[in-house]
Amino acid sequence: MTNYSFKYGIIGSTGKLGRDVNTILSENGGSPVLWFNRSGEYEIGKPDLLIDCSLPEALDKTISLAYKFNVPLIVATTALNEDQLKKLKKLGETIPVIQSYNFSVGIQILLNLVDKTKDLIPDWDVEIEETHHRFKRDRPSGTAKMIRNIFKDQSVNISSLRLGTTVGEHTVYFGGLEEVLSIKHTATSRKTFAHGILKAIEFSLNKKNGFFSFADVIYSDPGFQI
Amino acid sequence: MTNYSFKYGIIGSTGKLGRDVNTILSENGGSPVLWFNRSGEYEIGKPDLLIDCSLPEALDKTISLAYKFNVPLIVATTALNEDQLKKLKKLGETIPVIQSYNFSVGIQILLNLVDKTKDLIPDWDVEIEETHHRFKRDRPSGTAKMIRNIFKDQSVNISSLRLGTTVGEHTVYFGGLEEVLSIKHTATSRKTFAHGILKAIEFSLNKKNGFFSFADVIYSDPGFQI
Amino acid sequence: MTNYSFKYGIIGSTGKLGRDVNTILSENGGSPVLWFNRSGEYEIGKPDLLIDCSLPEALDKTISLAYKFNVPLIVATTALNEDQLKKLKKLGETIPVIQSYNFSVGIQILLNLVDKTKDLIPDWDVEIEETHHRFKRDRPSGTAKMIRNIFKDQSVNISSLRLGTTVGEHTVYFGGLEEVLSIKHTATSRKTFAHGILKAIEFSLNKKNGFFSFADVIYSDPGFQI
Amino acid sequence: MTNYSFKYGIIGSTGKLGRDVNTILSENGGSPVLWFNRSGEYEIGKPDLLIDCSLPEALDKTISLAYKFNVPLIVATTALNEDQLKKLKKLGETIPVIQSYNFSVGIQILLNLVDKTKDLIPDWDVEIEETHHRFKRDRPSGTAKMIRNIFKDQSVNISSLRLGTTVGEHTVYFGGLEEVLSIKHTATSRKTFAHGILKAIEFSLNKKNGFFSFADVIYSDPGFQI
Repeated sequence: MTNYSFKYGIIGSTGKLGRDVNTILSENGGSPVLWFNRSGEYEIGKPDLLIDCSLPEALDKTISLAYKFNVPLIVATTALNEDQLKKLKKLGETIPVIQSYNFSVGIQILLNLVDKTKDLIPDWDVEIEETHHRFKRDRPSGTAKMIRNIFKDQSVNISSLRLGTTVGEHTVYFGGLEEVLSIKHTATSRKTFAHGILKAIEFSLNKKNGFFSFADVIYSDPGFQI
Repeated sequence: MTNYSFKYGIIGSTGKLGRDVNTILSENGGSPVLWFNRSGEYEIGKPDLLIDCSLPEALDKTISLAYKFNVPLIVATTALNEDQLKKLKKLGETIPVIQSYNFSVGIQILLNLVDKTKDLIPDWDVEIEETHHRFKRDRPSGTAKMIRNIFKDQSVNISSLRLGTTVGEHTVYFGGLEEVLSIKHTATSRKTFAHGILKAIEFSLNKKNGFFSFADVIYSDPGFQI
Repeated sequence: MTNYSFKYGIIGSTGKLGRDVNTILSENGGSPVLWFNRSGEYEIGKPDLLIDCSLPEALDKTISLAYKFNVPLIVATTALNEDQLKKLKKLGETIPVIQSYNFSVGIQILLNLVDKTKDLIPDWDVEIEETHHRFKRDRPSGTAKMIRNIFKDQSVNISSLRLGTTVGEHTVYFGGLEEVLSIKHTATSRKTFAHGILKAIEFSLNKKNGFFSFADVIYSDPGFQI
Repeated sequence: MTNYSFKYGIIGSTGKLGRDVNTILSENGGSPVLWFNRSGEYEIGKPDLLIDCSLPEALDKTISLAYKFNVPLIVATTALNEDQLKKLKKLGETIPVIQSYNFSVGIQILLNLVDKTKDLIPDWDVEIEETHHRFKRDRPSGTAKMIRNIFKDQSVNISSLRLGTTVGEHTVYFGGLEEVLSIKHTATSRKTFAHGILKAIEFSLNKKNGFFSFADVIYSDPGFQI
């Protein structure tokens, strides 16, 4: 439970992630005052911040709301293109914008462990694997691409599996002579992302402006230093 | 230990599989009398049977040796093409030919379990995954293609990972609503294939002719009926 | 969506499983008319059936309600003792009682595949592993014990892992010479059990009396025959 | 291939590890000149170093040979007791002694990653799992105990699985809210340990005396710093 209360607006309030975000925020001091979804737009008060859990198609609407209310924006949308990221960076000059394809703490640790490991065994083979639900829009996942970027080598192979209602699994394998080392993260519910968004909210309320990643949020905690 | 002794010829005697086959056969009554590999051909006696552990390029040589000696042939070569398989079937009219991309007992069980499972939950998502060493010639593996053939659907996705010296892993995933069922086989040494080839040898010595799979070998055991 | 509507009573309505059962039943024609939980008992109508998602301590209350209303009972409680199971069997002489430690379809398939596999490779080593959330009452899980019973050998080892909020994972490993075969089931949400309870409800409404397992429910479907 | 040649004595030359050590050393400049095993003792020259791949019962013999020849000693024996470790430390005052329960590079990385992770998420649940062949003497494995020591908490649970001919698998799981992070190491052949012993040999030949772990060997490489 956060020790403060806040009012929020949510774009994509009825999607898979949006519903879990509403649940977790309401358990932690948050009250929704603005919704935007397929059925329309509802506004019952001025939000302290905005959260986008929608699809890339809704980003222009999100950006116009952010300029209108001049409050922090958390963007959890997947599969944004270069042009859309540029618009968000521009927006970050005015307000705090936190954008990530993955708001789980565990993935941030995985990214860090992979970074260390690749330096220790640079000659081992690398494979990345990600599993998600069958309706996932992008392939490979944005998180898998974040992992590949660590290697600064776009030829690293990513295997994408699509299975039922799987929320999200990412594994990085390092293969040497007669041994394999792997680092795996499994998210079993979108609530884990909602908890991360809660951390991002707390971070954003203390900023004037800027374009931030979820790593910025996590590493702003002095105890979380590798 | 088999309770009989036999003389064998081996094509591809110095490859990864060939060496393990020589080890296991010599522990079980086998004596090599003919070798064919990169360094040349050696013949010190007439073989009771032939084993091909080589690459597809050597198959014509193998077939000519089989016609010459008129003895059973076990083919463990990977990545044969349609034309080569046709030649082996033709050869089977004269002698016993046993051809498989995978001589492990565990894979035969996996194939059977997958076959049963697909009938029970035909509407679940399916993913196949295989991991092998980095020098593997074919992609996906012949075994992964055998698994896909069970589904009679060439659109079933196969993810291929290449890692270090991995001998062979195959996993089939079935994804439903909020649950996943998977069946996985791991071969940790080529000796497991060599043990299967030993079973195939025993089977072949009792046949006049015919073109057989390793499943034919396994299911000829009355205790092995699903 | 079932093509009928029904009224149900639920014991343990506010627990982890109870809440997901309420969600799934309400999406499929069910209306709750009786609740029993820590806060008390609420009755707003006569139920067509009863569901127990509570702890073993509540079973006597459940049984008394079942006798009172004389309607089918689904028991999803974990960790029942021999005496409690005897009472439920007795109750089954009067009404339909369906009891299982695991209402997922995938686990039923796993049980079946394990049964076939153990007959094919009786000399391979066996290991059972189960992972659940840290607050799980019983250790090993009831499902793991169901799996072990297949082997008719109480010396088969079960490893129990307790991790965060894990809903339920069960794996059976078979280890041979240089190869391992494993069958794994992962439930990622209790909704998968709620879907199974929905199947059990449909089954129960056509029965006069009897004590049934979830396997009886599943195999009553003519398409589900191994 | 090392760029030097050396003569070695090996205690336990015919065991599982001993045979793979002989293979890898002979491919890298090593010549055996002394063997000690069940069949007896053979000495055809003075060794430059000694390697113990035997059982704890042979350690006294090993130590007496080390004092006799006054050369470096590598100890890869499993399941030593406190008293035996004390004797080896004493011996280290005279000659270089390198002792480890696991000579793989990958396990050293796993130990390091686990150490970092435990500091970042100290409130997550921890589970350790190890799988080895059915004839393994100790339970849990020495490596699993090395991993548990990182947590400075002997109550951390270790699950031990025994399956067929499995060489060695170790996994550490961290369980949080709706997410699990795991780090896994698989050794698929004892050759991976033999390669580590080769590194330890090179390290030992440059030392006067001392009692060292395999971590000391690995981190003596300036490129291997986390």
